[in-house]
Amino acid sequence: MPVTGEMLIGAATLRGTEGDIHAVNPATGETMAPAFGGGGAAEVERACALAEAAFGPYRETTPEQRAGFLEACAQAILDLGDALVERACAESGLPRGRIEGERGRTVGQLRLFAQEVRDGGWLDARIDPAQPQRQPLPRADLRLRQIPVGPVAVFGASNFPLAFSVGGGDTASALAAGCPVVVKAHSAHPGTSELVGRAIQSAVKACGLPEGVFSLLFGSGAKVGSALVADPRIQAVGFTGSFAGGTALLKVAQSRPQPIPVYAEMSSINPVFLLPGALAKRAAAIGQGFVGSLTLGAGQFCTNPGLVLGVEGAALDTFAQAATGALQGAAAQTMLTPGIHKAYVEGVARLASNNRVQSLAEGVAGPGPYQGRAALFSTTAEHFAADHSLLEEVFGAASLIIRCPDEATMLRLAQQIEGQLTATIQMEDEDLELARRLVPVLERKVGRILVNGYPTGVEVGHAMVHGGPWPATSDGRTTSVGTLAIRRFLRPVCYQDFPEALLPEALRPGNPMRLWRRTDGVLGRD
Amino acid sequence: MPVTGEMLIGAATLRGTEGDIHAVNPATGETMAPAFGGGGAAEVERACALAEAAFGPYRETTPEQRAGFLEACAQAILDLGDALVERACAESGLPRGRIEGERGRTVGQLRLFAQEVRDGGWLDARIDPAQPQRQPLPRADLRLRQIPVGPVAVFGASNFPLAFSVGGGDTASALAAGCPVVVKAHSAHPGTSELVGRAIQSAVKACGLPEGVFSLLFGSGAKVGSALVADPRIQAVGFTGSFAGGTALLKVAQSRPQPIPVYAEMSSINPVFLLPGALAKRAAAIGQGFVGSLTLGAGQFCTNPGLVLGVEGAALDTFAQAATGALQGAAAQTMLTPGIHKAYVEGVARLASNNRVQSLAEGVAGPGPYQGRAALFSTTAEHFAADHSLLEEVFGAASLIIRCPDEATMLRLAQQIEGQLTATIQMEDEDLELARRLVPVLERKVGRILVNGYPTGVEVGHAMVHGGPWPATSDGRTTSVGTLAIRRFLRPVCYQDFPEALLPEALRPGNPMRLWRRTDGVLGRD
Repeated sequence: MPVTGEMLIGAATLRGTEGDIHAVNPATGETMAPAFGGGGAAEVERACALAEAAFGPYRETTPEQRAGFLEACAQAILDLGDALVERACAESGLPRGRIEGERGRTVGQLRLFAQEVRDGGWLDARIDPAQPQRQPLPRADLRLRQIPVGPVAVFGASNFPLAFSVGGGDTASALAAGCPVVVKAHSAHPGTSELVGRAIQSAVKACGLPEGVFSLLFGSGAKVGSALVADPRIQAVGFTGSFAGGTALLKVAQSRPQPIPVYAEMSSINPVFLLPGALAKRAAAIGQGFVGSLTLGAGQFCTNPGLVLGVEGAALDTFAQAATGALQGAAAQTMLTPGIHKAYVEGVARLASNNRVQSLAEGVAGPGPYQGRAALFSTTAEHFAADHSLLEEVFGAASLIIRCPDEATMLRLAQQIEGQLTATIQMEDEDLELARRLVPVLERKVGRILVNGYPTGVEVGHAMVHGGPWPATSDGRTTSVGTLAIRRFLRPVCYQDFPEALLPEALRPGNPMRLWRRTDGVLGRD
Repeated sequence: MPVTGEMLIGAATLRGTEGDIHAVNPATGETMAPAFGGGGAAEVERACALAEAAFGPYRETTPEQRAGFLEACAQAILDLGDALVERACAESGLPRGRIEGERGRTVGQLRLFAQEVRDGGWLDARIDPAQPQRQPLPRADLRLRQIPVGPVAVFGASNFPLAFSVGGGDTASALAAGCPVVVKAHSAHPGTSELVGRAIQSAVKACGLPEGVFSLLFGSGAKVGSALVADPRIQAVGFTGSFAGGTALLKVAQSRPQPIPVYAEMSSINPVFLLPGALAKRAAAIGQGFVGSLTLGAGQFCTNPGLVLGVEGAALDTFAQAATGALQGAAAQTMLTPGIHKAYVEGVARLASNNRVQSLAEGVAGPGPYQGRAALFSTTAEHFAADHSLLEEVFGAASLIIRCPDEATMLRLAQQIEGQLTATIQMEDEDLELARRLVPVLERKVGRILVNGYPTGVEVGHAMVHGGPWPATSDGRTTSVGTLAIRRFLRPVCYQDFPEALLPEALRPGNPMRLWRRTDGVLGRD
């Protein structure tokens, strides 16, 4: 399947005419062929009209049909074979092993959502049967299910060209919910986007679904992205990217005559808390493990550990020395885009020039034009608390160690940090009491708390939360990874005194779909 | 228990000094004693500080403790006895039977949420056990539960001085979720608010809970209300009232450094669709039943049927004649406040003076200063589609019949209406085909669809949805009535590789709380 530079609008392909977009191979700095034609208002209009037209029939598909479609998308992505892997590597600078792993994750994610659609728990079926004899007033028959909200706009992320992009978690969960999807491709990997988009387009056709179930647009965020979010047919937005990008879309969504939810996963520095017992026992090992997590994928993960807090003393010094040693040996890695590389270099320089911050180590320099060198800094709790700029995410393999005078200060800083995707606790049994004071603080700040692990590596499962309070996300009530993500694209409807012939199948007497349902509040599957 | 005019801030009582508020008895126009001192920034600050301090211990209470507290609130409200009923009648102009019924609903609601807290399904406990042998990477142990978001601001509604006010659905669901509540009392029923507030305050004390679990403030929306929503400790807002009021709070919430969710139930005209078979068989009976629903409680329900659509012809004329006859005999009823009465009179006058609208009937005039006379109007589908002002809610017993030339027009109008709390279908078996085309349209517009009933009367149960797309509410993903309302005040947290001693009880091995939990996606209670 060749990469053509065309947008996919329903079943059609179309070359945009509003300026060309070129991928850049960040390993070499070379501009890649072909040119991708950027779209404009007309293409947004067309894609949204098709999505709206598709919504009715698509949401009426059976769980089995929808699951089959998600599985067909997964297979079609696999069928792209090596062409996809090569294009994604070239456009992202990520190594082959990572891209292959990410493909596996993307395919597994689609299959997991297929399984979730079949399970039907997301329908949240509830039945309060009529009580015609109740006094003083009879009770009507009330039945509730969740329905999909309507067409969804998805914005591909730069840092996961497969798993958080065209066929990634936002698309998979929206399609699973029964929502058509219009994707705005990330301009950093347009070829990868087109290939995956064509795979989904072919699955739509093979499954006999209405063409508007999926469209893929190229173009600028300011033009195509904003127009997409402003379109009255779009009912929710999924986004992974920068704080500036996420809040810009949020503003558009809130300014609509009918505001809509924006699920933007934006920024996080993912604090790591080194408790005294763990430091006493494993300082050096934690230092090495931490650097492994920090430098993974050039640090370009939303869950990258950008902050480490510990009580100062010999054990924290041992941690810092081990981390310094490991980091000084870390090879430079190609970053995703020239722009991300530039922002990273500037962020590191800002930290290096902050006279309250001590530079501990820098990774090995690399030959490529856009390679990022890992960087490790240190400061005191006092300086950290006084300088709000130290809370800003530096996207890449940079991290800051905060030396706290005592445990109380560490707890206080935990209370002062903003919302995060994750927090990590390194602890031993003797730290249990301190951990019991720390966890309630962290629960209010983050979506996921880890013990004795590292935050990079986000499992796609039922119990994952990849979310967290503002500004980690624009909506802390949800997750963008894992099956719970389907709930973002649903809303409840109650059916009162419906004749059986008019009831949705999920709510019919006899439970023909064999769902878990709550009857008068009691869960059952009879 | 005397009414003193004081605010309740935690365990303390305090007289506000920022201007006096007086209740007006709308039946007589008389100003009622005592004066209620309005609060200001200092009282908002104090109530929020106490709520924040209470949040930690309150959310750690067991389900049994929290359920017991909700039940104690219910009992304490009942223990207020006749003093509450008399004060609420005097402040609202609502008849005794209605207030007694509403008290029953309020108490039942608190008890239902107690039951819901014990059930624990709202915790959404999920466990993906570790897979240390998995290839290529081991899987961590992941466990998810929902936790309360933090202190919640609740705004009492004018039209349900008990069930949607100080101890109403928003308060009950927030307290059930584990969130302390700061209520801004509605100035129309301050005495009722104080009495219910004192009941809850006494229950907090009797249950040994931290005092900040509940506070009650008086004052203006512009001053106390906005300050409350802007306070950084408040994490969500519950509101029932006007579109202007709801959107003003939403703006404050969105402008915070950390935006928060606002659950505002705002405005709805609740269309009723008269399908041909139903009209042919029951036109007169439907007309009478409709007027009964329209005039109930002087039409001051969020779910009042303000719009009726039918295909023109003899049967629709019969319906209109029956409705006209019933409405002409309907007695005037005291409205809730002078302001609501004024807005109603103006709204009716606006419709009456619209030369595209025909006045069909007016109810009997009444002697009181603030009595509302029911009013019925009619217009054509063409005029309705051309005049957006006809979609605006007239809060009170006014309704508009839309005469459609054919079924296709009725379906098209259904597509054009804005988001609503409810839609009603009057149908017979022979209307099934038309209903099957109408329901998918209505599902996208409303939170609840009724067949052969009337939308007034909102059951508090598990399957109720009292919500709907914008502008019916500010957040169409939820409900403000029924047990699902608890979800508004929760967010998910994932615990990765936690030692058993550090895990929340809901997620511990052996399922000590006997919850329904999803293990690897499969629901069970082992």
